[in-house]
Amino acid sequence: MRERLLAAEKVKSIDWRDGRLYLLDQRKLPLQTLWHAYESAAAVAEAIRDMVVRGAPAIGISAAYGVVLGARARLAAGEDWRAALEQDFALLAASRPTAVNLFWALNRMRDRLDRLGQGEDPLRVLEREAIAIHDSDREANLTMAQFGVELIRKHNHNAQQLLTHCNTGALATGGFGTALGVIRAAQLDGLVECVHVDETRPWLQGSRLTAWELAGEGVPVSLNVDAAAAHLMKTRAITWVIVGADRITANGDVANKIGTYQLAVTAMHHGVRFMVVAPSSTIDMSLESGDDIPIEERAGGELLEVGGQRIAADIAAFNPVFDVTPADLIDAIVTEKGVVERPTAEKMAELMNRKRLH
Amino acid sequence: MRERLLAAEKVKSIDWRDGRLYLLDQRKLPLQTLWHAYESAAAVAEAIRDMVVRGAPAIGISAAYGVVLGARARLAAGEDWRAALEQDFALLAASRPTAVNLFWALNRMRDRLDRLGQGEDPLRVLEREAIAIHDSDREANLTMAQFGVELIRKHNHNAQQLLTHCNTGALATGGFGTALGVIRAAQLDGLVECVHVDETRPWLQGSRLTAWELAGEGVPVSLNVDAAAAHLMKTRAITWVIVGADRITANGDVANKIGTYQLAVTAMHHGVRFMVVAPSSTIDMSLESGDDIPIEERAGGELLEVGGQRIAADIAAFNPVFDVTPADLIDAIVTEKGVVERPTAEKMAELMNRKRLH
Repeated sequence: MRERLLAAEKVKSIDWRDGRLYLLDQRKLPLQTLWHAYESAAAVAEAIRDMVVRGAPAIGISAAYGVVLGARARLAAGEDWRAALEQDFALLAASRPTAVNLFWALNRMRDRLDRLGQGEDPLRVLEREAIAIHDSDREANLTMAQFGVELIRKHNHNAQQLLTHCNTGALATGGFGTALGVIRAAQLDGLVECVHVDETRPWLQGSRLTAWELAGEGVPVSLNVDAAAAHLMKTRAITWVIVGADRITANGDVANKIGTYQLAVTAMHHGVRFMVVAPSSTIDMSLESGDDIPIEERAGGELLEVGGQRIAADIAAFNPVFDVTPADLIDAIVTEKGVVERPTAEKMAELMNRKRLH
Repeated sequence: MRERLLAAEKVKSIDWRDGRLYLLDQRKLPLQTLWHAYESAAAVAEAIRDMVVRGAPAIGISAAYGVVLGARARLAAGEDWRAALEQDFALLAASRPTAVNLFWALNRMRDRLDRLGQGEDPLRVLEREAIAIHDSDREANLTMAQFGVELIRKHNHNAQQLLTHCNTGALATGGFGTALGVIRAAQLDGLVECVHVDETRPWLQGSRLTAWELAGEGVPVSLNVDAAAAHLMKTRAITWVIVGADRITANGDVANKIGTYQLAVTAMHHGVRFMVVAPSSTIDMSLESGDDIPIEERAGGELLEVGGQRIAADIAAFNPVFDVTPADLIDAIVTEKGVVERPTAEKMAELMNRKRLH
């Protein structure tokens, strides 16, 4: 499976080359393929805030490279570069609030810096750490894809109708996806009849990114409005909803793209299984439950315009871009460390305490 | 209340004047206020199909005027005008499949024609009948608004957080609305803290029409993506979801705009009350249950473009524009004939059998 997955890889969205970070502008896809080059931490923070790059793991990876760019400038400026670098850490940390992978990656970079050995080149060390974060996310994608497919196979032996929300593919990660990685692996394993994709308003990550990624690889895909998901569950024999996550708390609650909670409630109503796929960098054991997760609210204007074109009157809009799905609506959380079925605080603690090589 | 409601009336979308039908182009609102004049049944059928006019009651009223226009042309052409008019009936009936008000209005026009008295002018009789359909819808709006507010008041005494989907206002009816009529009356009665409006993809009737209608009248309104409804129910203490209907079957099942079913499932999960408001012309006692309702599927392209602007790759899209909410998820169906709480086949039959003056 690993080799087949790697062979199927087509899209990437983050590239570190010649000391520069290149990001594929996800706001322009699929109509335009536009890469931007970044040379400063501030510019990377802005790219995260403005959603040039999005997806919890991709944000974390980009922020790690942002630290490298910041360190290079601070080192060149001399003086107390280490203290000055904290400004870049703060700027990157303030770019978006919900996905914990961002803070996880920044903490990992800071920790590495704190463990800097005598004679080690800080820039080289940081660059190696950022690349390691990137590589390990890719590896995690591969492992999760295999765990996820095993989970589907445990319940289903023929091709299934799956449903997914937002984008959790190559564009959202350092590899080829979390939820979409599982779906890709399921397709390679003959377990996919059709992938139903929620368009995912307001940013349309489903129609612009997910449906485009899947169709480009020949995976049977059918797009629908977000509000049609329950109707699909009732009429199309969907067996699994498979989504990613932006933050998972110690009790197994999951923050993910707005609409995920609604999917979980309707999946439970229809007896459809609900799988969350996320690397362990998404798990925040410092928060007891989903009630503690800061939910980003973006400008209401994102609902009133599409592609810069006004579509509605000038009215007040409430635009929370994530919601929280309580653990008791989730059948399984799939991570690279293992699978937690019917998540509870005890099972999450066990997962995160396991001694593992990776 | 009746007088206050009439005084608050601001918007209308259907006008019969000087033997012509004028329709406000709802595809262009709120950015553009554009009226079209119609002089043939075929043109009215096209306007219904292309959604110049939409909303179950408004479609029925427009079709009735379409019959008048058809009859005028057939009478002028001489020969067997009555037989020829059946072509117009067929054309109008084929314009959209789900809202039963269309067929109800056409049947009422045909029935009146069948009862044509000696010496009666058929054109004059048909025009009077169409105007009567229009007027009675307006009256039904007023009655339903009062019933709906009484129902809210039975459970709640102070200002509430309400949620609605699609557009059921002045633009969707001959008067000032079904669900939105109840909401307007509730506002006049001090029962509205805020109306949360689902944007209602793909046509955005919520953001383009409902939020615009409400904001224009000073009703506190907050727009949200459809996928945020469950999150709102969990975090904003919504007490009522209030929606319209396109067809209600003999057992109390309700076909309405895609997403309504999802709202009903999530409302039940959160203990939020669910009210359907529709005139009795929406009730189709000939169908046993919602399984029998033809669900219109429109072109997938409606998901891939916004305002003629491409937003997604060229992928397959499934675009059912209605769904069915089973009776057991509905707290009350409000009609001008009375209110049916916890609808069942028995209660629906009782409602429709009542001897009433209107």
